[in-house]
Amino acid sequence: MLDNAAGTDIKIAGWVRSVRVQKRIAFAEISDGSTLKGVQVIMEDPLMAKGLTTGCSVEIAGTLSDSPGREQSKEIQANSVKIIGEADAETYPLQKKRHTLEFLREIGHLRPRSQTIGAVTRLRDYAEMGLHKFFHDSEFVRIHTPALTANDCEGGGETFNVVTLGTEHPESDFFGKRVNLTVSGQLHLEVFAGAFKRVYTLNPAFRAEPSQTGRHLSEFWMLEAECAFVDSLSTLVGVEEEMVRSTTQFLVDNAGAELDFFARDNERLAQLVRRLTDQKPYARITYTEAIDILQRADAVANFVFKPRWGQGLQSEHERYLATLHFEGPVFVTDYPAAIKPFYMLPNPDGRTVACMDLLVPGPCELLGGSLREHDYSRLKSAIEAQGFEEGSLDWYLNLRKYGTTPHAGFGMGFERFIQMLTGLDSVRDIIPFPRHTGRCQY
Amino acid sequence: MLDNAAGTDIKIAGWVRSVRVQKRIAFAEISDGSTLKGVQVIMEDPLMAKGLTTGCSVEIAGTLSDSPGREQSKEIQANSVKIIGEADAETYPLQKKRHTLEFLREIGHLRPRSQTIGAVTRLRDYAEMGLHKFFHDSEFVRIHTPALTANDCEGGGETFNVVTLGTEHPESDFFGKRVNLTVSGQLHLEVFAGAFKRVYTLNPAFRAEPSQTGRHLSEFWMLEAECAFVDSLSTLVGVEEEMVRSTTQFLVDNAGAELDFFARDNERLAQLVRRLTDQKPYARITYTEAIDILQRADAVANFVFKPRWGQGLQSEHERYLATLHFEGPVFVTDYPAAIKPFYMLPNPDGRTVACMDLLVPGPCELLGGSLREHDYSRLKSAIEAQGFEEGSLDWYLNLRKYGTTPHAGFGMGFERFIQMLTGLDSVRDIIPFPRHTGRCQY
Repeated sequence: MLDNAAGTDIKIAGWVRSVRVQKRIAFAEISDGSTLKGVQVIMEDPLMAKGLTTGCSVEIAGTLSDSPGREQSKEIQANSVKIIGEADAETYPLQKKRHTLEFLREIGHLRPRSQTIGAVTRLRDYAEMGLHKFFHDSEFVRIHTPALTANDCEGGGETFNVVTLGTEHPESDFFGKRVNLTVSGQLHLEVFAGAFKRVYTLNPAFRAEPSQTGRHLSEFWMLEAECAFVDSLSTLVGVEEEMVRSTTQFLVDNAGAELDFFARDNERLAQLVRRLTDQKPYARITYTEAIDILQRADAVANFVFKPRWGQGLQSEHERYLATLHFEGPVFVTDYPAAIKPFYMLPNPDGRTVACMDLLVPGPCELLGGSLREHDYSRLKSAIEAQGFEEGSLDWYLNLRKYGTTPHAGFGMGFERFIQMLTGLDSVRDIIPFPRHTGRCQY
Repeated sequence: MLDNAAGTDIKIAGWVRSVRVQKRIAFAEISDGSTLKGVQVIMEDPLMAKGLTTGCSVEIAGTLSDSPGREQSKEIQANSVKIIGEADAETYPLQKKRHTLEFLREIGHLRPRSQTIGAVTRLRDYAEMGLHKFFHDSEFVRIHTPALTANDCEGGGETFNVVTLGTEHPESDFFGKRVNLTVSGQLHLEVFAGAFKRVYTLNPAFRAEPSQTGRHLSEFWMLEAECAFVDSLSTLVGVEEEMVRSTTQFLVDNAGAELDFFARDNERLAQLVRRLTDQKPYARITYTEAIDILQRADAVANFVFKPRWGQGLQSEHERYLATLHFEGPVFVTDYPAAIKPFYMLPNPDGRTVACMDLLVPGPCELLGGSLREHDYSRLKSAIEAQGFEEGSLDWYLNLRKYGTTPHAGFGMGFERFIQMLTGLDSVRDIIPFPRHTGRCQY
């Protein structure tokens, strides 16, 4: 809109972000959500600003002109200002002054009008588009995996039940059996990888995991992908790395102002964006090497949990590796089999599995993936060892019976990706309507 | 891949769809899910086809050559054929012969390998991309509305409860209150329309509505959009019509083979695709005119439900209008207020509301939308009249208190859109994993 030449007649509609009335002139900043910064409107008669308050909706007609200010290149000389919907200055909660993110969460229906949530929302929008572009350019097919499932991929995790009656008699409830909200679309995605070779999904996932911190959501969006005919971790790492690189680049190209809004006073964040987009491969170490690095670092870092081979990496460990040791993204591969799920492909060493996590500064674990066990008998044994109800995963096993292929896949928390690029502490500020323990607003 | 010149060395990986072994030559059709038709592979030594069965996975190296057949332009002269995963010909359920869609539903983990479900899956993929393209070209922002909600937009509809304990004490359950799966993202979307002007979502929605027919799913995908500063139904109809037209055109351009697969023996369907994409405005009548048409038609059509002003249109009525009377898409506007939800804007006549349904041959009702009541006091009265728990919709009401604008929106069933373009009878064949009464496979 502001790309037009000075002198062009123009109409805008939006919400007043701020008003300044002087003796002979008045100014208002109008936001319509399309950009980070609002549009500066000049009213040469201060009476035109009568009734304008922060938050009210307006339609303004005027003429575009070059701005003398440094803040914007164009502004609008108003000919007419029409108030559409008022916003009582006494009670409207979003005044010009800065608000804390905690306060904004309390007014979830108004916080999209704040600059921070506005920027996050546009980043989400472009990030989704960037992901779709990457996957289509890479010949993946988008699959709509289900939210309702009779299956629990991670094996007895903390899931939500879906009922119409109660939990006691699932056999007489709507579906005739116990149904959960999905924790992962992986198994369903593998079904389609057995026909389309490369598939992905970007869907809500759900975890009934109690959390009082800003690290976890009960409902979040997850990007998951599966590739048939892939038998090396390097191939999978290549797909993951290129997804992160190209999607971040897409944001640099299309939402540079939003990225800059978060990174301008945060050189570490600016540096991370540059690192994610440059062509140099991301660092890559094995879990065993990671433990070695952590054990050597412990003298200085003094971890609460002492790093020990065979145990999972704690947040403090992941943070050390990504933030201090590598100062950027690092793939950690080949974790001990005992701490990973049944479907991962064992390595020849008999102790580890062919898997990886991508650790990054900020949210730490950004994505995780693995080669999948594709041999019928070995997978059958793994399922039995896990204690799944007999027959419950026969459909999944059957994929290994008919035209099985080596294959691999991964999942990335969509909110974590955005959180990494904004540097925001709480993932509750990354999603439009956060759901977590004790909280389901609206 | 087949776009390369004859003589190019080529490798493919995929699944065998059929094998023909003759005395001096063998043929196999290999599918990798990327196109409707598989790739024809010629084996000049019939022994190369040893062990090949329908459903097994293979890697084949060879040379691309021009095909003498009419069915494909290129084929592959195989140099090597490697079986990756076998498929026992005795037990593999998907043999070459045609299977019914009902049979395919029983093997949900294998049906993506069938040609029909393959074509549907690619149409879904491209339709989603076409929708994203349309909305971004039209300056809409994509919002991830929640699946979990404490709110029930349609007012006491048939919703699924989400629990970790049971239904009796929601106050001590995970969220500390009763939480449902969303039936519509509209109200949440309106929150964001109050900041971004034009917003949309493509998300799962859920209805616990018992249905034994192929018309309804318990989990389905819904496209919803809201536009602030819109005060006329014509503007909204314009957005809806252009969305349907441009997304259908996107499919014609990118998935023409898939559309043709369904339309080639179905002239009505082919005609519908042409009608949807041509520039002539879709037909538009009022509800009152529709009742008039239906009453006059009744002598011949002999409807089970006699059309009467003030009552909803039945499927048989919608089908008559779209399929027989208009033979194409028709907007029906301005329904009686009494049969529509509380948030729709009343017309000056006091009897009807400013709303529309778009009826099409096939699924009948493709989308529905309306202007929204944007006046605080009138909406408050409407909410009270509806009997909502006091205060439960204060957040929604507040959007009318602070910077309200005339606005409008609509929702389209994503599966219905695909169903319309495939002519398939059951929506259960349109979604990867159908969920409905008594059925939640995997």
